[in-house]
Amino acid sequence: MTQFSTEDLLDPPAYPSVGYAVLADQIGVVMRSFDDIVFVQAEAVVALEAVAASLAKPGLRVLNVVTSMYGDYFATWLRRGGADVENVVAKLGRPVELAAFQAALDAMEQVDVVVLVHGEAANGVLNPLPQIAEAAKARGALLVVDAVASIGAHPFEVQTLGIDIAVIGPQKGLGGPAGLSAISVSEAAWARIAEAPALRLSTLSLLDLKENWLDRGADALPGTPAPLEFWALDAALNRIDAEEDGIETVVERHQVAARATRAGLRALGITPWIEDDASASALVTAAPIPEGIVPEELVAATKAIEDAAISPGVGGVETLLVRLNHTGLRAAYRPVLANVVAYGRALASLGHEVDVDAAIEAVAKAYQDAEPAGSTE
Amino acid sequence: MTQFSTEDLLDPPAYPSVGYAVLADQIGVVMRSFDDIVFVQAEAVVALEAVAASLAKPGLRVLNVVTSMYGDYFATWLRRGGADVENVVAKLGRPVELAAFQAALDAMEQVDVVVLVHGEAANGVLNPLPQIAEAAKARGALLVVDAVASIGAHPFEVQTLGIDIAVIGPQKGLGGPAGLSAISVSEAAWARIAEAPALRLSTLSLLDLKENWLDRGADALPGTPAPLEFWALDAALNRIDAEEDGIETVVERHQVAARATRAGLRALGITPWIEDDASASALVTAAPIPEGIVPEELVAATKAIEDAAISPGVGGVETLLVRLNHTGLRAAYRPVLANVVAYGRALASLGHEVDVDAAIEAVAKAYQDAEPAGSTE
Repeated sequence: MTQFSTEDLLDPPAYPSVGYAVLADQIGVVMRSFDDIVFVQAEAVVALEAVAASLAKPGLRVLNVVTSMYGDYFATWLRRGGADVENVVAKLGRPVELAAFQAALDAMEQVDVVVLVHGEAANGVLNPLPQIAEAAKARGALLVVDAVASIGAHPFEVQTLGIDIAVIGPQKGLGGPAGLSAISVSEAAWARIAEAPALRLSTLSLLDLKENWLDRGADALPGTPAPLEFWALDAALNRIDAEEDGIETVVERHQVAARATRAGLRALGITPWIEDDASASALVTAAPIPEGIVPEELVAATKAIEDAAISPGVGGVETLLVRLNHTGLRAAYRPVLANVVAYGRALASLGHEVDVDAAIEAVAKAYQDAEPAGSTE
Repeated sequence: MTQFSTEDLLDPPAYPSVGYAVLADQIGVVMRSFDDIVFVQAEAVVALEAVAASLAKPGLRVLNVVTSMYGDYFATWLRRGGADVENVVAKLGRPVELAAFQAALDAMEQVDVVVLVHGEAANGVLNPLPQIAEAAKARGALLVVDAVASIGAHPFEVQTLGIDIAVIGPQKGLGGPAGLSAISVSEAAWARIAEAPALRLSTLSLLDLKENWLDRGADALPGTPAPLEFWALDAALNRIDAEEDGIETVVERHQVAARATRAGLRALGITPWIEDDASASALVTAAPIPEGIVPEELVAATKAIEDAAISPGVGGVETLLVRLNHTGLRAAYRPVLANVVAYGRALASLGHEVDVDAAIEAVAKAYQDAEPAGSTE
């Protein structure tokens, strides 16, 4: 059991220079990547902007999948650098449809880059990464994947899927710090970046990271690394290593949490916002806001159960769904049960009929069926 | 006495939304600023790039003081945005000369912005901020100051000096975390930023910080704030508040450390790299590398004393000077003495005659004279 005292955060030792390459290797293992891993010393949205700013050039043809505001952000960043961006926009709060993606791909004479968010914490979507990857590769396009809200919760295999650029943050599925992020970059991606107008001496320059760190032997990081963030990443990766099957155990824990949550919702008499289990995030589960229920009242009513963590959807779906959070330490029996019961009781209190007892039973059964990976503690 | 265990860094509580505005007020007190304070959720060099990127526009006329590579960086960032930048470049490792600055200022028909690094950790320089501020104000120019390596070590008064934009990081003189930074922005500066081509939806956009945080009541920060960094800032600012005279006590402690270090050097028989005490940093003291001494050998020889922290100068002065670090916890009798003795013994071991006993006496005397602010522990 850990403790938290803010005074203990003062005057930490510097993170040792030799440690960064070790952390990068551990990140590589988690992502199943054999490519270069570089660190961005800020939250993952900075890494995403850096990827876009470093790739963009006039005439670069990009097919960009939009399943939340992050897809819109990426298009903005790419266009700022002169790229031609074609968006394939999914229905609000829904995964991209493969037919729509394929049609958009087929309609493009040439495709240099395909961009996809794997999992969406904003609305609980999981996009069909393996199929998108196959289609992108078939067109010879570079594949860029935002895996910030899928790493640690879903299988994510950079090498197997041929992902050229993958961005992760440690603060969700990996249970690590929020103030740094990491990018896996393939040789083909470095070559493409080298073709763009050289963005140098910038927070947003991947070339700087390559020349000032990788090409200098991956020793001391450039700039002023934040020791707390790297020590916390170290601890989080070691905690994953200590699991029986490492990252696979962590992924399975999130998968069980999602299964139990979805079983609980169905037992309540509610169809999960994303009906198809294979298209649903294992970090958060989106539950619908039934007709006649006021979203703010629903969220407020869930606060009656302290252990629950339920918040409105983000990015245009605020009135359509709430998100039951089972990320990291919350991917466990008690928080999952608290979420389902809080959602169920809140609906009941607002006059919507649900079967809370059946939901409790369903969550417990999902955890029993999942032993031992999803132990009930 | 604090302890450090990396496991304690896992799963920190979120920093409370209501706390950010309180932290901003505390930063305002430390800077003596009545202006808006915004946080950049990354190390201070990101905040500096954001300032340049947010101010720059074609035709903006900037006088930029260069006393280390940071001045060069700032010119690069401003020019990227189309600004006309006039550099006034000091001699290597020296503060800017006021006559040279005034001549450069006089030579410009119009000056929109003056940019200055207050203190330089790279070479131990302290630039003449009050005089530069007065001259800049006399021309009606906006004044931008990088105070990352002076805050907490030298008096820094945003309001009194009329500084329009001041950038700080907590990790040096304030003894705080490295992974965030803060900017004080005057009304005139916001107006100037509003005239620039709107940089939006970017890590480097100050307008984003204004609209997404200040204008929304300075509640929850946008993005994914790193809790470890904000809790550590909280602890560091509270530690300063707990000092008898707050930030003034912290500044005096650094001033005493600098005085004692410089007295020690002179007693060794060495003239400090910066002869004028008023032009020297109180975070690091630059000591010369005497003729005939090989820089790498000097630095290596100082490692014989474990408590010393002596490193080569940075930014072209590597062969000219070493830096005796007395920043934060090191602004105290023992680390200061260790630095001076290590430097002296290293010189002696390389055949350069020095009086180490006299230096020990001089450091002790400087601390005795300074009681109680610079207590010998």
